[in-house]
Amino acid sequence: MTSLIKLLQIFFLSISVLSISPSTASPHPLDPLTHSEISSARHIILSSPLFSSATTFHYVGLDEPDKAEVLSRISSSTSRRAFVILRSNNQTHQLTVDLMGSSIISHQIHTGSGYPILTLQEQGAAILLPLSYPPFLQSLSKRGLDVNDIVCSTFTVGWFGERQLFKRLIALLCFVAGETANFYARPVEGVLIIVDLEAMEIVNYRDRVQIPVPKADGTDFRSDKVGPFVGPETKPGFIVQPQGRGFQIDGHNVRWANWAFHLGYDVRAGAVISLASIYDADMETHRSVLYRTFVSELFVPYMDPAEEWYFRTFFDAGEYGFGLWASQLQPSTDCPAHAEFMDGYYAGRDGKPVKMSNVFCIFERYAGDIAWRHTEIGIPGQMITEVRPEVTLVVRMVSTVGNYDYVMDWEFKTTGSIQFRVSLTGLMEVKGTPYTHADQINSDQHGTLVAENTMAVYHDHFITYHIDLDIDGTENSFQKLKLKPVKLSDFNSSSPRRSYWTVVTETAETESDAQVKIGADPAADLLIVNPNKKTKMGNAVGYRLIPGSATGVSVLADNDFPQIRASYSKKQVWVTPYNKSEKWAAGLYTDQSRGDDNLATWSHRNRGIKNKDIVLWYTAGFHHIPYQEDFPLMPMISGGFELRPSNFFERNPLINTKPYSPQPRFNCTFTS
Amino acid sequence: MTSLIKLLQIFFLSISVLSISPSTASPHPLDPLTHSEISSARHIILSSPLFSSATTFHYVGLDEPDKAEVLSRISSSTSRRAFVILRSNNQTHQLTVDLMGSSIISHQIHTGSGYPILTLQEQGAAILLPLSYPPFLQSLSKRGLDVNDIVCSTFTVGWFGERQLFKRLIALLCFVAGETANFYARPVEGVLIIVDLEAMEIVNYRDRVQIPVPKADGTDFRSDKVGPFVGPETKPGFIVQPQGRGFQIDGHNVRWANWAFHLGYDVRAGAVISLASIYDADMETHRSVLYRTFVSELFVPYMDPAEEWYFRTFFDAGEYGFGLWASQLQPSTDCPAHAEFMDGYYAGRDGKPVKMSNVFCIFERYAGDIAWRHTEIGIPGQMITEVRPEVTLVVRMVSTVGNYDYVMDWEFKTTGSIQFRVSLTGLMEVKGTPYTHADQINSDQHGTLVAENTMAVYHDHFITYHIDLDIDGTENSFQKLKLKPVKLSDFNSSSPRRSYWTVVTETAETESDAQVKIGADPAADLLIVNPNKKTKMGNAVGYRLIPGSATGVSVLADNDFPQIRASYSKKQVWVTPYNKSEKWAAGLYTDQSRGDDNLATWSHRNRGIKNKDIVLWYTAGFHHIPYQEDFPLMPMISGGFELRPSNFFERNPLINTKPYSPQPRFNCTFTS
Repeated sequence: MTSLIKLLQIFFLSISVLSISPSTASPHPLDPLTHSEISSARHIILSSPLFSSATTFHYVGLDEPDKAEVLSRISSSTSRRAFVILRSNNQTHQLTVDLMGSSIISHQIHTGSGYPILTLQEQGAAILLPLSYPPFLQSLSKRGLDVNDIVCSTFTVGWFGERQLFKRLIALLCFVAGETANFYARPVEGVLIIVDLEAMEIVNYRDRVQIPVPKADGTDFRSDKVGPFVGPETKPGFIVQPQGRGFQIDGHNVRWANWAFHLGYDVRAGAVISLASIYDADMETHRSVLYRTFVSELFVPYMDPAEEWYFRTFFDAGEYGFGLWASQLQPSTDCPAHAEFMDGYYAGRDGKPVKMSNVFCIFERYAGDIAWRHTEIGIPGQMITEVRPEVTLVVRMVSTVGNYDYVMDWEFKTTGSIQFRVSLTGLMEVKGTPYTHADQINSDQHGTLVAENTMAVYHDHFITYHIDLDIDGTENSFQKLKLKPVKLSDFNSSSPRRSYWTVVTETAETESDAQVKIGADPAADLLIVNPNKKTKMGNAVGYRLIPGSATGVSVLADNDFPQIRASYSKKQVWVTPYNKSEKWAAGLYTDQSRGDDNLATWSHRNRGIKNKDIVLWYTAGFHHIPYQEDFPLMPMISGGFELRPSNFFERNPLINTKPYSPQPRFNCTFTS
Repeated sequence: MTSLIKLLQIFFLSISVLSISPSTASPHPLDPLTHSEISSARHIILSSPLFSSATTFHYVGLDEPDKAEVLSRISSSTSRRAFVILRSNNQTHQLTVDLMGSSIISHQIHTGSGYPILTLQEQGAAILLPLSYPPFLQSLSKRGLDVNDIVCSTFTVGWFGERQLFKRLIALLCFVAGETANFYARPVEGVLIIVDLEAMEIVNYRDRVQIPVPKADGTDFRSDKVGPFVGPETKPGFIVQPQGRGFQIDGHNVRWANWAFHLGYDVRAGAVISLASIYDADMETHRSVLYRTFVSELFVPYMDPAEEWYFRTFFDAGEYGFGLWASQLQPSTDCPAHAEFMDGYYAGRDGKPVKMSNVFCIFERYAGDIAWRHTEIGIPGQMITEVRPEVTLVVRMVSTVGNYDYVMDWEFKTTGSIQFRVSLTGLMEVKGTPYTHADQINSDQHGTLVAENTMAVYHDHFITYHIDLDIDGTENSFQKLKLKPVKLSDFNSSSPRRSYWTVVTETAETESDAQVKIGADPAADLLIVNPNKKTKMGNAVGYRLIPGSATGVSVLADNDFPQIRASYSKKQVWVTPYNKSEKWAAGLYTDQSRGDDNLATWSHRNRGIKNKDIVLWYTAGFHHIPYQEDFPLMPMISGGFELRPSNFFERNPLINTKPYSPQPRFNCTFTS
């Protein structure tokens, strides 16, 4: 370090946001569709005589090149395609569009069950219908409610056997806003409305029972409404980086420390992380770790069989679009002040591109943790201490699918680990109830009384990740390193010990070998290895999956309709052979799906997964028994898992990192 | 905020440490023994005709006042007592000393099995014995090793049936240091030495087999020995707090945001956190959460039945003293630069006080996480966003019990949650082996070949916490809120759903009702509640235990000797009625214990635990299959659990906290 005085000007403005302009960045074959590519796709499609201007666009995303093409690094300029799902003339159309050649290269009409993602616009239109619907106005009048205070919201209807027609329907439930922004806390319970989305009209209306609407007081979360700020205060803290920031973003390519990866936005998945590789200093080369990972589905079933509740069994990615409901990240609060942001683009219902500002943030995390340490006092006369503080990189997205906010973090560590974290906050769905005190209750109400007239209904969240690890290449295997207890008998033993455990390694041959129920199955380390690549010691290189908290699995009956649709939710771990079309755990057409196209049904083919290109699927599961602290808005609760190098490196990759340098003096001057 | 320019001078010197001087602080009945109190205890004891100067002190700690006395806030000046375990004339003595009255108020000679904590000094003396022991010198000579390079280390012998005499023995294993500080990586395998600690002489020596000593190259971790710094680099970051620090420390009393607690040092447990209470803004009062919590034991059994390995079944608190092996925390690396430190005192073998500098650090953590958020776009025409960033308080201690470094964090959140985290790093115990490649191995070697001639043996870590929650008072109950799946038949059901789950609450009557095996037992929320205290909604106030990662349990046979000694390790959760003497999960005299006095044996009495003062015991368990990345030194791996308010508060305690204020501009100037 020189003796020059370094003047570092750091200006933090309350609204300043650094965004990377894509136009100057290096293109990549996995880049999400740009603003102009979305426009092109629309133009190409609407130029076709097949599609009129009444066509509605439900999914527009990158149809990425085949994996072999991506891995061989063929230039992106030769192949840019869009995959599009649209509705036209009451039919669902699935198209692949060649954006370079300006043509539709494949086109199918979907004849099976299920429908595509709902558009924001049709939901926005549907929720207005009740407000001028006479039976509903009568229901409001009966309850003494003012229609000007009413907000309705959309709820997917699911599938409950042949009883459903093949119409594309949505349920509406209505709430009282007015005095509160937390209308979810004030349901007009007992009223269920069904809308035909194609006709955009109410086709079923039932006002079954009148239940008191919970009062507004105590439901709001807006800072100017929550009353005096008597809650606990903390002192703010900001990160200062005297040597500047450690990561670089070039378009969608992110480089930080020993990691490089591609980050892009998809309207259904949200964040898609691709081609994550790590630089191995001993081998002096980048090594492949991950081809592609994204959230494949979020299955959120509620546990109340009542008429207005039984169908609340959501699939937030496939029905609503996890990326579509992403929230704009707020600087300094959603992400630390030193974070950088990235935008995304999606197609609106009319196919035109819409910008999703600040959909991701990227920041270095200085949590004060330790990467490794040791103090050695065992050598007489010596005290040796070495400590390396930990700095990590976080990619964050928040998706607010109606009431719930999901904070999704992918945390990269220089050790090679990636921590996947899903955190839940936001608002719960609650049921209006006559009860004002738990002592009044003497039958199962399917929830917790969290406030007067407010029953927070039991529910689950199952967040399924698609994780296509490519450990030093595509040909991998899945192994269970099972702990096998061994007993030594008293009489024959050469050892005073009566038992120990050892490891039996089972390599999965077919898909059924790799379905794991964490906790219930015997203890084992779960690895994805490259059987063709060994360390110098002869151990297969690999990564292991370490479950964190949130290891719940579904306990619904196998013949229950939501469980049929999400039949994969009884095991946390699945492994399938790589198949480009197998992306969406609950199937491509999830709305009103019938469970015939999902992770479990694919996997029942019991295909070979040994020494092949394989994909890991992990589901983090939360069983949510609500508590009063979750009301009116939940404090964050987190769960997830770690992918950790396991014989991937010859040794600890951080052993030869610099010790901490004495910190320079610094003065900070603050102006109000 | 005023318009004055605030000049904040922050000077960070590489060795500056802030310590709180205890002499000016407010005393507390739970304060650990001071320097002078330890001296007093020694003086009182050695003044007694019973004890000569040959007396060795093995435990000196606070004998805290009875809980009722502490809770009634009787002044600490009336009652200061020390609990002392010493050895004299080959007997173990257990004394209580009244420090105010300068007298021994109770005295017992321990006639049962087991011995107290080993002193550092006797271990320091024992490890020198082989270096002048002719058979050992011959063993070295045979192997071509220079005695000047040798370091021996102490290993507790445990108990393996009547075969052991009632002598206080220790095993010694020896290693080659010399070129490396990581002598653990270079064992002189096949040589086992047993020392009689009272006689301080070798009583058993066996050189069973000659195995190559692993080479030094690649084992070191010292920064000047690890070779060029080719490992990944990150940019440093420091926390700046423009409004200053948010916590206050007065003696051992810590106050931060809505938390207050007492933090003290014990030579056996390490950190003891007491009387944690939280300020409830709605009730306008402090509320009791936790009476006392500390690490009760760490059971670390290895899985190799060979002669030099079978007994490696450590109890790091009871045999070695988890606090005794605490490492001095390094500023800026072990703890962030803005942390504050606290010292501790323990009694050496001669009873004289020894200072443990920087045994704890306390710091505010700015990890960039979100406390709560919501974006509401469901009200047409409005977009409402509220976000509160999360700031937490961390108490940290590091204990390096020989080879392993345990980083222990207690993280307090303003939501009322406390996150307990145990992180493992440091050095593994490895076995010398002839193998230099995994392909050479065709029989169970009980470990992973992590380097040439280096077998890292399979092992477990079970870290047992004593957690005396007092939720709004001492009379609590333990509840399992079990998820009960309910099936609805096709024919009778009034609902299209075929199933849901509901909650059945079981309140534990006796101890056997409260032993839980996480994962294997059906899904349930586990709560400590105060059945006498309800919220306004009528729900019992409580906290729940949320397991994180590290949920392993022991799979050793019940009749295996280490398993007998740690029989509690087959369940993660135990609940006992409060009993002041029930502190140490593996018994008071753990060294060479026989399992007759431990958490499981106490609990087999099946005492009542309903609406009583109860204690929760939670064990975080790691099954460690070693991988090459763990060599020569392990990157941190973490596990733990959360204690989370559950109907403790009427509503989210952070709902009425201030939104984030726009950050002031700040300039930082750095000088090298």
